[in-house]
Amino acid sequence: MSVSVHPPAGGVPTVDVVPLGGLGEFGLNMMAISCEDTTIVIDAGAMFPEADLPGVDLIVPDLAYLDSRKGQLKGLVLTHGHEDHIGGVPYVIPHLNGAIYGTALALAFVANKLEEHSLEPQTVEVKPGSVITIGPFTLEFVRVTHSMPDCVAVVVRTPQGVLLHTGDFKVDQTPLDGQPFDLHRFAQLGAEGVLAMFCDSTNIDRRGYTGSEAEVEDAFEEIFTSTEGKIVVATFSSSLYRLQIIVDLAAQFDRKVAFVGRGMIENSQIAQRLGFLHIPTGVAIKDSDVSIFPAQDVVCLATGSQGEANAALSRIAIDDHRHVSLKDGDRVVFSARKIPGNEKAIGRVMNHLARRGVDIVTDSNKHVHVSGHGSEEELKLVLSLVRPKYFVPVHGEYRQLAQHARVARFVTRGLPSPVEVLMAENGDVLRFDAEGGRKADKAPVGRVLIDGTRVGEVGDEVLRDRRHLATDGLIVPVVAINAQTGIIEGVPELVARGFVSDEGTADLLAEGARVVAKTIRECSVEERTDPGLIRERIRVELRKFLKKRTGRRPMVLPVVMEI
Amino acid sequence: MSVSVHPPAGGVPTVDVVPLGGLGEFGLNMMAISCEDTTIVIDAGAMFPEADLPGVDLIVPDLAYLDSRKGQLKGLVLTHGHEDHIGGVPYVIPHLNGAIYGTALALAFVANKLEEHSLEPQTVEVKPGSVITIGPFTLEFVRVTHSMPDCVAVVVRTPQGVLLHTGDFKVDQTPLDGQPFDLHRFAQLGAEGVLAMFCDSTNIDRRGYTGSEAEVEDAFEEIFTSTEGKIVVATFSSSLYRLQIIVDLAAQFDRKVAFVGRGMIENSQIAQRLGFLHIPTGVAIKDSDVSIFPAQDVVCLATGSQGEANAALSRIAIDDHRHVSLKDGDRVVFSARKIPGNEKAIGRVMNHLARRGVDIVTDSNKHVHVSGHGSEEELKLVLSLVRPKYFVPVHGEYRQLAQHARVARFVTRGLPSPVEVLMAENGDVLRFDAEGGRKADKAPVGRVLIDGTRVGEVGDEVLRDRRHLATDGLIVPVVAINAQTGIIEGVPELVARGFVSDEGTADLLAEGARVVAKTIRECSVEERTDPGLIRERIRVELRKFLKKRTGRRPMVLPVVMEI
Repeated sequence: MSVSVHPPAGGVPTVDVVPLGGLGEFGLNMMAISCEDTTIVIDAGAMFPEADLPGVDLIVPDLAYLDSRKGQLKGLVLTHGHEDHIGGVPYVIPHLNGAIYGTALALAFVANKLEEHSLEPQTVEVKPGSVITIGPFTLEFVRVTHSMPDCVAVVVRTPQGVLLHTGDFKVDQTPLDGQPFDLHRFAQLGAEGVLAMFCDSTNIDRRGYTGSEAEVEDAFEEIFTSTEGKIVVATFSSSLYRLQIIVDLAAQFDRKVAFVGRGMIENSQIAQRLGFLHIPTGVAIKDSDVSIFPAQDVVCLATGSQGEANAALSRIAIDDHRHVSLKDGDRVVFSARKIPGNEKAIGRVMNHLARRGVDIVTDSNKHVHVSGHGSEEELKLVLSLVRPKYFVPVHGEYRQLAQHARVARFVTRGLPSPVEVLMAENGDVLRFDAEGGRKADKAPVGRVLIDGTRVGEVGDEVLRDRRHLATDGLIVPVVAINAQTGIIEGVPELVARGFVSDEGTADLLAEGARVVAKTIRECSVEERTDPGLIRERIRVELRKFLKKRTGRRPMVLPVVMEI
Repeated sequence: MSVSVHPPAGGVPTVDVVPLGGLGEFGLNMMAISCEDTTIVIDAGAMFPEADLPGVDLIVPDLAYLDSRKGQLKGLVLTHGHEDHIGGVPYVIPHLNGAIYGTALALAFVANKLEEHSLEPQTVEVKPGSVITIGPFTLEFVRVTHSMPDCVAVVVRTPQGVLLHTGDFKVDQTPLDGQPFDLHRFAQLGAEGVLAMFCDSTNIDRRGYTGSEAEVEDAFEEIFTSTEGKIVVATFSSSLYRLQIIVDLAAQFDRKVAFVGRGMIENSQIAQRLGFLHIPTGVAIKDSDVSIFPAQDVVCLATGSQGEANAALSRIAIDDHRHVSLKDGDRVVFSARKIPGNEKAIGRVMNHLARRGVDIVTDSNKHVHVSGHGSEEELKLVLSLVRPKYFVPVHGEYRQLAQHARVARFVTRGLPSPVEVLMAENGDVLRFDAEGGRKADKAPVGRVLIDGTRVGEVGDEVLRDRRHLATDGLIVPVVAINAQTGIIEGVPELVARGFVSDEGTADLLAEGARVVAKTIRECSVEERTDPGLIRERIRVELRKFLKKRTGRRPMVLPVVMEI
């Protein structure tokens, strides 16, 4: 079916597009598309918390919008298998009244998660070129290239026109699996007329072209040539092209390959089973066998490129790994980008490795990493091919979305109808109807902190302890007050935590306790018998005292017991 | 005087060199050199805390080592005026029994700090070539190039031989002030024989040459040419070459220059007074006059390149600055490196600017910044010139020091006597005597958190609030127990803070309170009347309960009142 991009007024049902994540600093990806009584969701990502959320293991989007469409979520569509696109799937399933649609690899990566949550939703495998219908929507999948195989863009034909969601992509002209970005289909869609394109903005601030996954081969060949000891390559376990390059070089240089770290082991098995990773016979060994081979005969592919406290590389760095230990002459290659916020953790792991005498290679001294997201010129290319009526930059922080909008206007300024940019933030309801496209409403949006899984627990404990020590300012003054007389029972006690302490601290706290007692004595009986009032009085006076005496402003958390 | 690098055994006094900062993650610079009853300190830096130390304004080195040398600190020698080399000076003065030695600019930057602390130590201005004697030490200052003018390396002639401390440097072959790195003197010292060299390692992991400060001129010229609105350049106020480049372009393009932000105003005035910054008449305007000029006629040099919450740029970004506001068509240039840990804060400032429609330029899309520290080839060059007997990499994290050590061995491997590397960490006592140089002892070392100044207060408040909200796990169970009977008085209370809360939390806390009561009831009278024991019991049981019920492990901080 072909839908005009200028639908006749009246009668044609409205289409709402609601980004629920991926825009702004909340970097996980999820977008809902609703028409009449049907909603579909494209991607359901999760992200990992930073140090400022200790004890939190996972962040997923608030799904209140889906609650408001109860029973109407007829499909969950996945563009590819990266955590920030599939990590939230288990939390969406309870809302799902239909199937999960995705490529073989994406579904395989999801399968593990579903198992962990003992969920068994219906799944439908799609291929580039597949067309499926969900209520008023007809979906088509178009191959794009990225840092992992089997990635697609999603075309959603709606009563209002054609929507195109690019997913994550770069234009890799020499993909390792020989499956190129489908430029022709993008061109055809552009010719046919696209109502709105939702486009990855991650690397808009990088000029030129990102480059092919194949680009890192030379640097790794040089590393295999020049390394006398063990080679450990830390990368994302989903970066299957990277894994394939290492495996091939290992075969070529007669090294055994060991996959180290749970994610690396699981994903490499999945990828092999599905034919996305080819390991010549005799090349792969178990991580438990690494120690029985000479250092120069082994290369390890390990998790932990982000300095995650519990990942394989972090354990190896502090010589706390069951199977892999490193020494002088060995080499560790960081073959991944530093996710902002992880720089310090990564640096610490590097320092530990350096203490072992290990040589460290990063993309700052060798070309061992290439991004999976298209740079400015690739984004321009896709814009020129698709020429959508409405352009919605997604997947980036606001500054990047704004820059992408600027570029889009610039690229299409010469066209009879330059793109209209819709600058959306998470939760904005983009409505398409007879009057065209616009921000029409705001849906509930936010983040949900998932906690209590076993994942990264030790790391969180460490973080939490560090924070408890670092907080530098919790004082809990405790007083028991006779509910009738308002007279203090016993002596006020001050409990301090994370308070930068020296020999003077004990005296300070004792004096603080006297301040509390004095404060209460000076209150009226009415105040003294009103826990709310007395708490506030104590807080104010104690803060004043502490500021004056120490210059510090600890959090003061008075506890008043009525007995 | 010329001292042999192989001092005759016996009679010659020992020389101890003690790095007190600058090695490892503790990135402020300070080094003590002691011989007989004389100690000198080279540099006394400070660093700013990260989010994990809310309420802390400044971090300076622990000075216990100087306490142990009471009255013997005869000189404080400064290599240049950067915060991480002079920020701690006011805290060293009380230990100082002599003068501060530094170049005109370094001393001028220190003067402000001394004033703030109302300190008036003796100061001695030195120039490249100056020679001064302090007890058994004869010091000579050698010009080096860096990101600011008037920087020197320090030669310390000791009874054991010549020590060379490079300070921060790069080899800028085209310095803006025409004052080149004194390669000849370094060569002469190498010919004479240097016992030990202490060398900047900051950029050892960058290949090639860092490049001249002049390199950014083209990018800025392009920016002045193409910007229709206001230009705001955020950089370090001490980066005087950068400031000069902007001022000269402003004059050339008929824009007025405004210095915005306290540090920028103060430092530009100092630099002008000393002749390190030349501003043509009529070019400079007050920040308060920015608003009366058309946008296209103004360029602002602003503080805040690191996203500091209280700096000028952060206020401008949220349109909260008294004098400067930005709009569509204006441009903000980030002309500084991102100090690790600041990436997120900088990103947020950029997002705010983007919301104003401002175009953002960083060194990722234009060459608007060049580092002040020498890359691998420059460090090799200095090594080749000096060829010290002992090489001590300083000023870098461990992985960088280790890499620098590797490079040093490689560079000198062909020499009759390749360098001996001494890998030191802060507090290591490097002893030089008849037996040569070695790690001989460990001095007390650490960091002191300076707090309670007015600097960055709001920023800290914001941080602190965010942390209080984020902490996700403080539970304070409070019980009053009769000291005699061990019976609970009143009802146990649970106070929670930073606990990710939902509608179930109140019930949870109530139930937790019952758990506490039950725990106490089940204790023996002995336990119940022993605050230590009962606290631990409560902590264990409550943690168990909370973990089971919520999967979380909040910090449990029992308060037991005996009444």
